[in-house]
Amino acid sequence: QPGKRTIQGKITEAIEKLLGCEVKVSGASRTDAGVSALGQAAVIQIDSPVPTGNLAKAITDRLPADIAVTEAVEVPRNFDVTASVKSKLYRYTIHTGTDRPVMQIRNLWHLPTELDVDAMNKAATFLIGKKDFKSFASAGDKRENSVRKIFQCKVSSENNRIYIDVEGNAFLYNMVRNIVGTLVEVGAGRMKPEKIKQILEAKDRTAAGPLAPAQGLCLIWIKY
Amino acid sequence: QPGKRTIQGKITEAIEKLLGCEVKVSGASRTDAGVSALGQAAVIQIDSPVPTGNLAKAITDRLPADIAVTEAVEVPRNFDVTASVKSKLYRYTIHTGTDRPVMQIRNLWHLPTELDVDAMNKAATFLIGKKDFKSFASAGDKRENSVRKIFQCKVSSENNRIYIDVEGNAFLYNMVRNIVGTLVEVGAGRMKPEKIKQILEAKDRTAAGPLAPAQGLCLIWIKY
Repeated sequence: QPGKRTIQGKITEAIEKLLGCEVKVSGASRTDAGVSALGQAAVIQIDSPVPTGNLAKAITDRLPADIAVTEAVEVPRNFDVTASVKSKLYRYTIHTGTDRPVMQIRNLWHLPTELDVDAMNKAATFLIGKKDFKSFASAGDKRENSVRKIFQCKVSSENNRIYIDVEGNAFLYNMVRNIVGTLVEVGAGRMKPEKIKQILEAKDRTAAGPLAPAQGLCLIWIKY
Repeated sequence: QPGKRTIQGKITEAIEKLLGCEVKVSGASRTDAGVSALGQAAVIQIDSPVPTGNLAKAITDRLPADIAVTEAVEVPRNFDVTASVKSKLYRYTIHTGTDRPVMQIRNLWHLPTELDVDAMNKAATFLIGKKDFKSFASAGDKRENSVRKIFQCKVSSENNRIYIDVEGNAFLYNMVRNIVGTLVEVGAGRMKPEKIKQILEAKDRTAAGPLAPAQGLCLIWIKY
């Protein structure tokens, strides 16, 4: 995003300030504008005088208050930060109360509708496994292979919040937000849980529900 | 704040859109940039076709997602929204953990220092009552009378969060943030709790601790 303030840009700046040399920061996962990340991963190739154990804090000290590096570890020189990903967990948060959650509005979707969590969970089970998720990929996705493996897809609720946790080996463009939009159709009673099977078979984006807004989505962690 | 997006401006626009006539929105309490409010109050004088019980929702429907009107009630025509205030509660939130609370950073002060809550509470007791708070007013405050009544001042903690609740009949400019900055001096062991008495007696801003940052402060409610 040239000319825009990006997290990648800020981290690059912080590392260059720390080490006094140019560095290329390669992130594991792209996130759209408005999507949050608690556990992004990135790789840099440096010859650092700072011990690895001190790097996270030293970089964080040079970052704006809303960005932090939580851990730094050494990896082999040929480590591929994207291809080596074993699994990623995304969490999507919906606030279903009629009150406006003004303080957390940047990190959730306010949908003042009762949602049937049991029906959503039933629908979610049809998404688990190695499947072709073409119906859940937005048009921007040009990758030929749309088969991905979903390890878990769980819907839970606490007070007026609904959490949708999706863990997979990789994701298509907007895949989690399209899954959430579809599960909400089920939760609102506009779609039967079993419809998910037909949607997957259709391999057509228009078969699934609408795209859920970006701000409810958060990348929780990436495992290698 | 001419030319800037203000909450007052957005609420004025929403009401004018709803009612189709000009309206003047008078708020009870000014808040500095970066300070949040969960319970601000404001008065408008209108001849509304919308029943009072439906007004809050009708206005909120026309507001951006991070602003909400929670309740609308009728008041006498000569009601003074500022002078009628009986008490206000402010809460200040400090995160003392070394981890960066990146998701809530707009609504707290990150101060990775251990703070002695008992010492802070002891200091806080000296602030309760009807006193001259001149030492806790920032220079911008031109009001002659700096006597205010503090009903409660409590420090509590939960996990890595410290909450400072201050309830009073009215507040001087930056008064809560100056109180917080001073209580933090006590909590960090740089000032004895009893020092508060001397600070109050000095009637001099330089006697108190530094100004705490705006983003930790939130106006919780106003009582009439």
